[in-house]
Amino acid sequence: MRFCSHCGHSNLQFSIPEGDNRPRYWCENCQTIHYQNPKIVVGAVPIWDGKVLLCKRDIEPRKGYWTLPAGFMENGETLQEGAARETWEEACATVAIDDLYTVFNLPHINQVYVFFLGRIEDGKYGVGEESSDAGLFELDAIPWDELAFPTIGRTLRFYIEDLKSGTFPVRCQDIAPLQRRPSED
Amino acid sequence: MRFCSHCGHSNLQFSIPEGDNRPRYWCENCQTIHYQNPKIVVGAVPIWDGKVLLCKRDIEPRKGYWTLPAGFMENGETLQEGAARETWEEACATVAIDDLYTVFNLPHINQVYVFFLGRIEDGKYGVGEESSDAGLFELDAIPWDELAFPTIGRTLRFYIEDLKSGTFPVRCQDIAPLQRRPSED
Ligand SMILES: [Zn+2]
Ligand SMILES: [Zn+2]
Repeated sequence: MRFCSHCGHSNLQFSIPEGDNRPRYWCENCQTIHYQNPKIVVGAVPIWDGKVLLCKRDIEPRKGYWTLPAGFMENGETLQEGAARETWEEACATVAIDDLYTVFNLPHINQVYVFFLGRIEDGKYGVGEESSDAGLFELDAIPWDELAFPTIGRTLRFYIEDLKSGTFPVRCQDIAPLQRRPSED
Repeated sequence: MRFCSHCGHSNLQFSIPEGDNRPRYWCENCQTIHYQNPKIVVGAVPIWDGKVLLCKRDIEPRKGYWTLPAGFMENGETLQEGAARETWEEACATVAIDDLYTVFNLPHINQVYVFFLGRIEDGKYGVGEESSDAGLFELDAIPWDELAFPTIGRTLRFYIEDLKSGTFPVRCQDIAPLQRRPSED
């Protein structure tokens, strides 16, 4: 953020506004405070005939890695609508959204991930614009080493674990930044 | 949004960018797309000795009405940290955050509300800067007609209902815009 989106001036400050308790971008000219808040990434665990629908990312980050359909929640939609929309956009599948399932805090990147359980309504899927491949995976054939994000692996592992009991309690966890290996320093 | 926060130009468009599927603000000069996404409001149900801590709002909207401590989630924090921070800021109480409890979609105002169960650690509370009063309420003495938002009433009613069974499943619901009465037209 370099210019005030309200008045166009370039004299943005980054300091604690009067009456606030943390630094914000604010405009010296028109006094507008430009709040920045975490974003929600919403997705689904789309199931068909005991298999889970994954898609291969064709965009960065993690291009070429497999993911559950998920993306930034949009204004004007519910979490469930967002999960269904992402499943349609990324894997061309129509999914009935069931219960809330996993919630992950990623404070280092200002994101909250939210996944819902879902059922593919007719078994059909395809390859969406931001994907290079899509497929229904047996739960013992998930490409664990080729998953895009920790949120995906944790959600899938919870799902496999919960299938044994048939109960799917909501899981809420933090995800820490990936450790860099010493060789990367 | 009237000016590009990236380059300061005033020639913002509101239309569907190439490769996208919904209208966005974007800058004709530098091509930056200015995404707008829902915000998370996070709060707690702070319990002490069977009573719940409410605070009276001293800011608009709904100034003078009672609320559970809640506010916009900040960058760099987890949902739980946000819930504890809001309880401290609005009611000067130190709360141990337990399980995720309620999640509400408010798509008409681009918000998702998230409440956690919490325990006030020492029974102490006070009146925060954005509050004009605070108090521990017996569950049969909640001021139902003076609650600030539907999310507050629903969360409190769920809590009272769930106390009977001692189980507090996560609840996820939509909240529709308030109906205006004909006399308000
Ligand atoms: Zn300004
Ligand atoms: Zn620009």
